[in-house]
Amino acid sequence: MRDGFGPLKDQAAARAVALVESGMVVGLGHGTTAAHALRRLAERLRVGEVRDVMGVPCSRFVEAEAARLGVPLTTFEAHPVLDLTIDGADEVSPELDLLKGRGGALLREKIVAQASRRVAIVVDESKLSPCLGTRRPVPVEVLPFGCCSQVRYLESLGARVVPRKADGRTLFVTDQGNLILDCDFGPLSEPRRLADQLGARAGIVEHGLFLGLATEVIVAGPGGIRHLRRGGPGAPS
Amino acid sequence: MRDGFGPLKDQAAARAVALVESGMVVGLGHGTTAAHALRRLAERLRVGEVRDVMGVPCSRFVEAEAARLGVPLTTFEAHPVLDLTIDGADEVSPELDLLKGRGGALLREKIVAQASRRVAIVVDESKLSPCLGTRRPVPVEVLPFGCCSQVRYLESLGARVVPRKADGRTLFVTDQGNLILDCDFGPLSEPRRLADQLGARAGIVEHGLFLGLATEVIVAGPGGIRHLRRGGPGAPS
Repeated sequence: MRDGFGPLKDQAAARAVALVESGMVVGLGHGTTAAHALRRLAERLRVGEVRDVMGVPCSRFVEAEAARLGVPLTTFEAHPVLDLTIDGADEVSPELDLLKGRGGALLREKIVAQASRRVAIVVDESKLSPCLGTRRPVPVEVLPFGCCSQVRYLESLGARVVPRKADGRTLFVTDQGNLILDCDFGPLSEPRRLADQLGARAGIVEHGLFLGLATEVIVAGPGGIRHLRRGGPGAPS
Repeated sequence: MRDGFGPLKDQAAARAVALVESGMVVGLGHGTTAAHALRRLAERLRVGEVRDVMGVPCSRFVEAEAARLGVPLTTFEAHPVLDLTIDGADEVSPELDLLKGRGGALLREKIVAQASRRVAIVVDESKLSPCLGTRRPVPVEVLPFGCCSQVRYLESLGARVVPRKADGRTLFVTDQGNLILDCDFGPLSEPRRLADQLGARAGIVEHGLFLGLATEVIVAGPGGIRHLRRGGPGAPS
């Protein structure tokens, strides 16, 4: 187990999957924590606890995993509004804003989250952060065309920019054929302002700041599982 | 001649191309007016009026045209800052803000424009508009994934949304593999606000509002050619 939180994250994922009800359309996040949730959802479907659940996958990888586990899939064309999305995050702020994109699926993850009535994020408590940007750089997905000009722009905003590699030599390419620039701005005192600056720039397709999207965060820690809700106190449950 | 302004637009394009100096890197817009400029630039290169000029094309179509006309091309990797871009527009506001994208190349056109020191827009005077959105819908380039959820979002902002077709039956697909939604919001009293709302939405890759990007607009009309400069009066020349 890579991070020492595996069993706890699995319990937290199970808690998130307990939110799924029969007939729901569920967004399926990408990443290790979301993989726990997908497995748990497949179990609930297999034993008949829920039925008629359909998933919208956030990546080609998740699409293949869901098919392998027997979780039925659907599309946005059939269901433009999702009932619930379950996903992970790389950092979670006290306001339940998120930094995401370490797995490279940030664009589809954000499209799915913003189309969902409810967004439940599952993390271990090492992901709780006083301020986004403290632990991780901000992943910025850019079009290959004009990529160098985006590097200059991001540097002008104060970032140290590292193009993400798939391995030691080749650039990482997203499901959309774009590149990812990992941008270290340090702790972000004004994440909304940065999000606006990134959103206004042509060629920056998306970024890893998920502000105001999570409705709840389920946190696994040695002391148990906490279910934090937007606008509410962190009530242990 | 389709619009009755052909010869005038060609004169205006020639005026824009007169801004090109030897050694410059020039952004080459997509569309009928930019095609006049490209032909004029090729002529100046051929007769030796300017030399060592290199172009950055805004579309695959322009790339092929430039090659056919013998205009040398370069890339953003080699030249992340461009000296000048020459392009057309579908509407021009009194503030020299633009509505673009009728040709479907808005994303690369905006990337090129924002990387340019100087952006000269060539139009006939039928494109001058008291308020962007008066004559044309706003083209919005969206990822195919989650496209239906973007239609709902754009409608919630007040748009009448028409997916662009390549012909009567098939959807138009951009050079990036995305779709275009033509969004009629009516005349835009607050284009900046709309641009922010579109920029913040994951899955909306880009839109046709070019605000604050044109440094000058060269207008062809029956009364002659006017060269408007940002922040300056419309001085006839």
